[in-house]
Amino acid sequence: KHILIVPGDGIGQEVTEVGKKVLEKIAAKFGHDFTYDEALIGHVAIEATGDPLPAETLEKMKASDAVLFGAVGHPKYDNDPSAKVRPEQGLLKMRKELGLYANLRPIKLFDELLSASSIKPEILKGADILFFRELTGDIYFGEKGRKNNGDTAYDVAEYSRYEVERIGRKAFEAARTRKKHLVSVDKANVLESSRLWREVIQKLALEYPDVTVEYQFVDATAMLLIKDPKRFDVVVTANLFGDILTDEASQIAGSMGMLASASIGDGTGVYEPIHGSAHDITGKGLANPMASVLSAALLLDISFGMKAESEVVINAVDQVLKKGFRTGDIADATTDKSLILGTDAIG
Amino acid sequence: KHILIVPGDGIGQEVTEVGKKVLEKIAAKFGHDFTYDEALIGHVAIEATGDPLPAETLEKMKASDAVLFGAVGHPKYDNDPSAKVRPEQGLLKMRKELGLYANLRPIKLFDELLSASSIKPEILKGADILFFRELTGDIYFGEKGRKNNGDTAYDVAEYSRYEVERIGRKAFEAARTRKKHLVSVDKANVLESSRLWREVIQKLALEYPDVTVEYQFVDATAMLLIKDPKRFDVVVTANLFGDILTDEASQIAGSMGMLASASIGDGTGVYEPIHGSAHDITGKGLANPMASVLSAALLLDISFGMKAESEVVINAVDQVLKKGFRTGDIADATTDKSLILGTDAIG
Ligand SMILES: CC(C)[C@H](C(=O)O)[C@@H](O)C(=O)O
Ligand SMILES: CC(C)[C@H](C(=O)O)[C@@H](O)C(=O)O
Repeated sequence: KHILIVPGDGIGQEVTEVGKKVLEKIAAKFGHDFTYDEALIGHVAIEATGDPLPAETLEKMKASDAVLFGAVGHPKYDNDPSAKVRPEQGLLKMRKELGLYANLRPIKLFDELLSASSIKPEILKGADILFFRELTGDIYFGEKGRKNNGDTAYDVAEYSRYEVERIGRKAFEAARTRKKHLVSVDKANVLESSRLWREVIQKLALEYPDVTVEYQFVDATAMLLIKDPKRFDVVVTANLFGDILTDEASQIAGSMGMLASASIGDGTGVYEPIHGSAHDITGKGLANPMASVLSAALLLDISFGMKAESEVVINAVDQVLKKGFRTGDIADATTDKSLILGTDAIG
Repeated sequence: KHILIVPGDGIGQEVTEVGKKVLEKIAAKFGHDFTYDEALIGHVAIEATGDPLPAETLEKMKASDAVLFGAVGHPKYDNDPSAKVRPEQGLLKMRKELGLYANLRPIKLFDELLSASSIKPEILKGADILFFRELTGDIYFGEKGRKNNGDTAYDVAEYSRYEVERIGRKAFEAARTRKKHLVSVDKANVLESSRLWREVIQKLALEYPDVTVEYQFVDATAMLLIKDPKRFDVVVTANLFGDILTDEASQIAGSMGMLASASIGDGTGVYEPIHGSAHDITGKGLANPMASVLSAALLLDISFGMKAESEVVINAVDQVLKKGFRTGDIADATTDKSLILGTDAIG
């Protein structure tokens, strides 16, 4: 098995190092032969080649069995709305070129972190949500531009039946293996693309009579996720709504630093933290590497079918937490200060 | 002063009755001469006239000094993505026709409700956020439709400099009277309309050097609102992001049932709860009327400049809560069961 490490920007570098170390340990323990390569994306790729997704990186991705990804982004571009070349273009192009239409974001709280969240423990305990975020459509990939001499800007959100159906099917299949409850999130009271989304899910639902489907508007969902996270099992939604709701839902898991995601579809799967490049803490050894470690666990499970190996990784994370070790983001008033560690040590 | 009551659908009927009663009490107490009329919108208007915003309603709105609004929506349309006439069209048309481009949503927790929220009291205490949601642009009002024989649906998000500048200015002015901190929320790393948004706010910021401006992506904001609500003072954002983030932020105030909003712009101001028509509890006398009562308080303050009158209303709400009275949505384990009241009684 050949694994491509794509650290990207900011803390992406630090956390994927730890993720890779875990993969190496697993290979040694289970006698697997994993080979590794590395490639550039995002700001670091722009600096080196002028292109946020160099052709070489894309080729290497296509040729590998799985990608362990870090993060992209840089404040330089965020504060310059007129920049033409941006780190995020690399990420979006990767998703499109690899056909990564389904982004799985499992939101689960490790028991040890119950008190680290800003939400009350009794509201959180037992919450276990699996998000399916559509990843290659919507307003991310529609036409965008300026008109009226640059005084008006527009972005087109677009979905085809085919696009909704394939992500919907993945969500229904997953719901079958879980609590058989699916919430489809849209804004069908306002958006035509949401009305098409709802039509397709309603039709699919007929094929999965064993799954209970609930339709929610995105605004109500943003509220319900905090009010009562336990009411959710599997959630399926569009690209933009998924972006917003999963970041919000990270608070259910105590910290973004704990959340991994899997992007799958037509070819190579990509595994990455849901957190970003976090330039404010880059290079300080403060980043929580758990999201990358858990991304490695998802990689083993989903791309390599190595369930036992994946579970060893998740248990290791659990053990580290049980022993009281914490990075700053998941430490709270009850944490023993001497057990607050940096990226490497916690890894 | 002439006030138009527009109850709309579902619990909109029940809660505006209480809101109106409060306005009548204030008029009596302060010797004001308020006159009232009523008009239809939404599902009830469709049933009566076929039109979700009858011409008569719009005329009455334009002719009044302020509108006390309920809610619109009906599950019948939500579950029928192909319906051509929808209650929400009445609401959106009203916003556009009255030029209600600024939707103010103050998020403030009454001390007595600290324990009613799913968020920890120590995270919440002292949180006080004023949202400015743009209300007549974005993907709500751009072109939308189908192509490819109905197999593809699209919605266009659009902003002009002018639209961003006028809402931005209102937010900066408000920040000046508060903690002088403004967070502008966009998705400028992906959307062209967000990049224009950020350009305009950056330019405006030069005119308000006394206000500290922070730029956040919508996904990060959805997370930060729960993680640390106290870091926010004034927030300004686009129509869709504002819809999602303010519903989410309702959890900071314990319940949607406590949140009022003011929609202002070129003409008559409209005051309404941020909650919806809630058909699941309609007609049961369970709805929390406080959001409508507090909408009446905003109406007195913003449209009539009656600050003292407005404060009397807010204090009355506070007194009701201090005495331990609660509707179901804001009751918790510590509430004396005999003090859990219905819509009328709490009003
Ligand atoms: C960096 C950004 C373009 C990206 C997105 O919005 O998809 C990120 O927020 C994510 O969730 O992976
Ligand atoms: C009913 C709906 C169209 C409306 C909106 O999305 O604006 C509502 O959610 C609101 O926030 O007022």
